[in-house]
Amino acid sequence: MGNGNVVSVVTIGTIAYDSIQTPFGETDCIAGGSALHFASSASFFTSVGIVAPVGEDFDVCELSFLRERNVDLSGVEVLNGRTFRWKGRYGYDLNTAITLETSLNVLKDFKPHLPESYRYADFIFLANVDPELQSCAIDQIKNREAYVALDTMDFWIESKRDALMEVIKRVDMIVVNEAELRQISMEYNLLKGAKKILSMGPKTVVVKRGEYGILMVNDEEVFLCPAYPLEEVFDPTGAGDTFAGGLIGYLSNVGSVSNQTLKQAAIMGCVMASFNVEDFGAKRMKSLTHKEIKERYSLFKKCVEFSDLKL
Amino acid sequence: MGNGNVVSVVTIGTIAYDSIQTPFGETDCIAGGSALHFASSASFFTSVGIVAPVGEDFDVCELSFLRERNVDLSGVEVLNGRTFRWKGRYGYDLNTAITLETSLNVLKDFKPHLPESYRYADFIFLANVDPELQSCAIDQIKNREAYVALDTMDFWIESKRDALMEVIKRVDMIVVNEAELRQISMEYNLLKGAKKILSMGPKTVVVKRGEYGILMVNDEEVFLCPAYPLEEVFDPTGAGDTFAGGLIGYLSNVGSVSNQTLKQAAIMGCVMASFNVEDFGAKRMKSLTHKEIKERYSLFKKCVEFSDLKL
Repeated sequence: MGNGNVVSVVTIGTIAYDSIQTPFGETDCIAGGSALHFASSASFFTSVGIVAPVGEDFDVCELSFLRERNVDLSGVEVLNGRTFRWKGRYGYDLNTAITLETSLNVLKDFKPHLPESYRYADFIFLANVDPELQSCAIDQIKNREAYVALDTMDFWIESKRDALMEVIKRVDMIVVNEAELRQISMEYNLLKGAKKILSMGPKTVVVKRGEYGILMVNDEEVFLCPAYPLEEVFDPTGAGDTFAGGLIGYLSNVGSVSNQTLKQAAIMGCVMASFNVEDFGAKRMKSLTHKEIKERYSLFKKCVEFSDLKL
Repeated sequence: MGNGNVVSVVTIGTIAYDSIQTPFGETDCIAGGSALHFASSASFFTSVGIVAPVGEDFDVCELSFLRERNVDLSGVEVLNGRTFRWKGRYGYDLNTAITLETSLNVLKDFKPHLPESYRYADFIFLANVDPELQSCAIDQIKNREAYVALDTMDFWIESKRDALMEVIKRVDMIVVNEAELRQISMEYNLLKGAKKILSMGPKTVVVKRGEYGILMVNDEEVFLCPAYPLEEVFDPTGAGDTFAGGLIGYLSNVGSVSNQTLKQAAIMGCVMASFNVEDFGAKRMKSLTHKEIKERYSLFKKCVEFSDLKL
């Protein structure tokens, strides 16, 4: 799909047709997947390239909103067969999805192939796919300074623990939820678990806590940032990848990774995720504007700012 | 117990013998209860008086650490019978206690009686007791400007809903956990629930979210503050009352209730609660110093501060 432009951020992940049930409604076969959600967010800040497979049944018009935001789609491969499908349900506790059905389809035969121009990107986001594919993607990176972040899920932690541990050693950042952190580190306490993962190689651990925001830990700092409070949370599908897109997109935009920019980036991630959950799939991200992002950031800041205590 | 000095803050609650099991150890019959935990925290900032009953079996030496911090105990009544007892257990998820046994004992016949000198206090904390007793305590307040905060629990929300609704109308602040907020407001979403409670009378709603910190809502502001991150959480019993003690104690110390001081006070509440959970019951609060409080606040600040985003 296209020629492959020089991009600053590359994500390796999935493009899917999602069917989602929430207490507020349901939807059938809408375009989703980790790479789509990540790019829908990161593309507000930087140039993004996607590596992901779709099936012959996939309507490429679903990606036109990304193309309009200059997302490079030359890494999107059309494979024989049907597009990856996920069917899930949420109860009132929107922090946890219940998977009803997963049809891997083209994902079964997927091997990531980074177009030549992607191999010099500054930031790589390895979305939640088989850790062996994540390693295979890292092998193709030619920019030795590239900053690599990784997400995963319980399925891989259980079934491919060794391969996952190998790839974790090779990344700069890991972005997981609380349950995943506990499962990887085998520590119940999040801080202890994060420190254990730091000892494995990554320089920064980001823990996604759903409506409670995020915890970010590195050797020097512990940073806590709540989620933006919303009166209507409609569909959290893709919130984690939208968060990661804001985080990595912001880092790419400012062009440096420091404790200061990491904290700012985490906040931008939370701001972006707060939009994603306002409608089904990536619908809200399609209509989103820079002006709205700035406004929400201002509101977010008001919710967490305080003046120094008198002691 | 004593003559009754002029105090700035009065709490009406319980003094108990708690038996607690956690994954990290267990303890039998240690002094606890909402009033004790509240005072163990508030007494760092202001003069506190306690209204609570104990039984003939209660060893008053258990309260000597409070007396040393100038807590007035003239409102502690020794009633015929045994002291209120609570037996509870926590799993690794320390956010939720499982009650194993409750023996109300002297609490069955308790009617709060505020010593004359308490009736002019500036702040009243109605800890979790029967809402009829909370109303009875409010009836005795002679300071028309007194700021009144209220806590409650599922048991009263279910069994004495009407009485609870009546007392909620009469208070300035309500301090509850997420489940209690949902149960009172009959709204799942916390923001919606908080706004519903604001429409009932209170000016400020504080939602305690355990390890995730607090959400504070009033007509003008929404404030989010994470809990201080700890590697060892030993026993959360009393954390909510210790939080409230830091919150109300700080407000009394600065002598004004504004959006600015409310946020600062909520943070102080989180700081104080972070000590409480480090050991069984109020043990950690007994050895706590002002120096340690200042140090932890500095560390807390580092965990939530960030520099303005570049947009």
